[in-house]
Amino acid sequence: MIEDGVEAARPGRTVETSLTRYEGTRPSRVFDQVVTEEPLELRVIAAGVTRTLAVTMRTPGNDFELAAGFAASECIVRSRTEVRGVSYCIDPSIDAEQRYNIVNIELNAASLPDLAQFERHFTMNSSCGVCGRANLEALSDLGVEPVDDDARVSIEHIYELPARMHGAQRIFSTTGGLHAAALFDPDGATVAVREDVGRHNAVDKLTGWAFVEGRSLRGHVLFVSGRASYEIVQKAAVARIPVVCAVSAPSSLAVDLARRFGITLVGFVRGERANVYSGEERICAR
Amino acid sequence: MIEDGVEAARPGRTVETSLTRYEGTRPSRVFDQVVTEEPLELRVIAAGVTRTLAVTMRTPGNDFELAAGFAASECIVRSRTEVRGVSYCIDPSIDAEQRYNIVNIELNAASLPDLAQFERHFTMNSSCGVCGRANLEALSDLGVEPVDDDARVSIEHIYELPARMHGAQRIFSTTGGLHAAALFDPDGATVAVREDVGRHNAVDKLTGWAFVEGRSLRGHVLFVSGRASYEIVQKAAVARIPVVCAVSAPSSLAVDLARRFGITLVGFVRGERANVYSGEERICAR
Repeated sequence: MIEDGVEAARPGRTVETSLTRYEGTRPSRVFDQVVTEEPLELRVIAAGVTRTLAVTMRTPGNDFELAAGFAASECIVRSRTEVRGVSYCIDPSIDAEQRYNIVNIELNAASLPDLAQFERHFTMNSSCGVCGRANLEALSDLGVEPVDDDARVSIEHIYELPARMHGAQRIFSTTGGLHAAALFDPDGATVAVREDVGRHNAVDKLTGWAFVEGRSLRGHVLFVSGRASYEIVQKAAVARIPVVCAVSAPSSLAVDLARRFGITLVGFVRGERANVYSGEERICAR
Repeated sequence: MIEDGVEAARPGRTVETSLTRYEGTRPSRVFDQVVTEEPLELRVIAAGVTRTLAVTMRTPGNDFELAAGFAASECIVRSRTEVRGVSYCIDPSIDAEQRYNIVNIELNAASLPDLAQFERHFTMNSSCGVCGRANLEALSDLGVEPVDDDARVSIEHIYELPARMHGAQRIFSTTGGLHAAALFDPDGATVAVREDVGRHNAVDKLTGWAFVEGRSLRGHVLFVSGRASYEIVQKAAVARIPVVCAVSAPSSLAVDLARRFGITLVGFVRGERANVYSGEERICAR
């Protein structure tokens, strides 16, 4: 019934990207793999009627399982006999590449289930549109310009950020269960730290603080405890933060968005090592 | 303009919970803090008209900043002069405790912005309803029963899970940028491993695989690479998985849900140590 085919046009699970790897103060230009992050639109179809169930940012692969698992975990389908088939979108009006970002779950039912009863179970995440490419353009459509900021940040300062944020965290040490995000001003001072179970919430708490304070984030550095997703870079672009650093890996879409909006994106900030994926002109040695 | 008040009824950032801590094969009953996870409904109001913008799972604290940051990062507000005020819900028809899970952003505008233009930027996450308590009940409303499963799992087996999952991962070693989830059968064999940038997607890929295979997950163990959120336990409950283990911390709502639905929840599985937050009767020594 359900089988992921393998075709050349499908996005892979990883993407090769060029980056500047710093070891101490020594930069070198290398290639490395980043994990693919692409939106997936899940649609349900019954008796020829189609509705979008959800859009989720995911790593391509096992997409039909993801669709089935999502629909089952939301109790939209209870048994596989209710499912006629799962397939990629074959709508010829949709760009070939994006067809692999849309999965249709066709039901045997004579009509669509009442999705309204499920809607209260969904939370929304500010992250994406129907397709990654359209989404990169969507920010421009909203009037968001590239971040024009001649900030310079020393790599040695970046190496200090994990310890400085950790020292300022309030809850992590008691629970170990939180994402954290911190803002550092152009002089390197810690201006705010926020924690949350959701990584994007921690960033919203920071940018919201600056918003209500009427504070410009020009020349500031955003540091996040986990991975750098599309969502984090999107929020930085809107908040006009020129430099985003993360303890862990960035996703493919985070790198694409950072390059498009002129944001310096630094990942794997660990010890005296870091990877600079975009905007390396802002990184210098002291 | 915006100020988080501190009142006694507000949920705290952490919650004390009892748990069974295993060191080697020796269990002891202790108290520890878990991070609070509660839903937050964000509403926009203009000229007396209210609309829900989003519901996000968050850690209470800096809620008004979170609301402002979310609205700003979605370009729904561009300057703080557009915001008349931010407040907790004062609707007397809402349970006092839940009022702190609803934040109103009141705009100066004569009418609500056209939110439809923003909707394509939101992805949905299968996670919550308007309030945590209602949400715990929502699963029952959908006909999900407690997981009645007399599985027994040795603590030594649980200690082996991180290395076994890591050995089976395909992408992590090349990118370091992924969440992973794995299923182990009642004999302890690894039956499937999935990876994704989204932790809930990795679990959906697993439960979706079982769904399309028509495979019962009775007696199975789900192991996840990161934290155990409400969402992970919800998906386990629907998929009838009796034991959920995580490398890192659980949230308060994950613990509540696991206890309510009879799921064994194990966190901080590291070396020869682990914390059992619920369903400890299923954990034994070899």
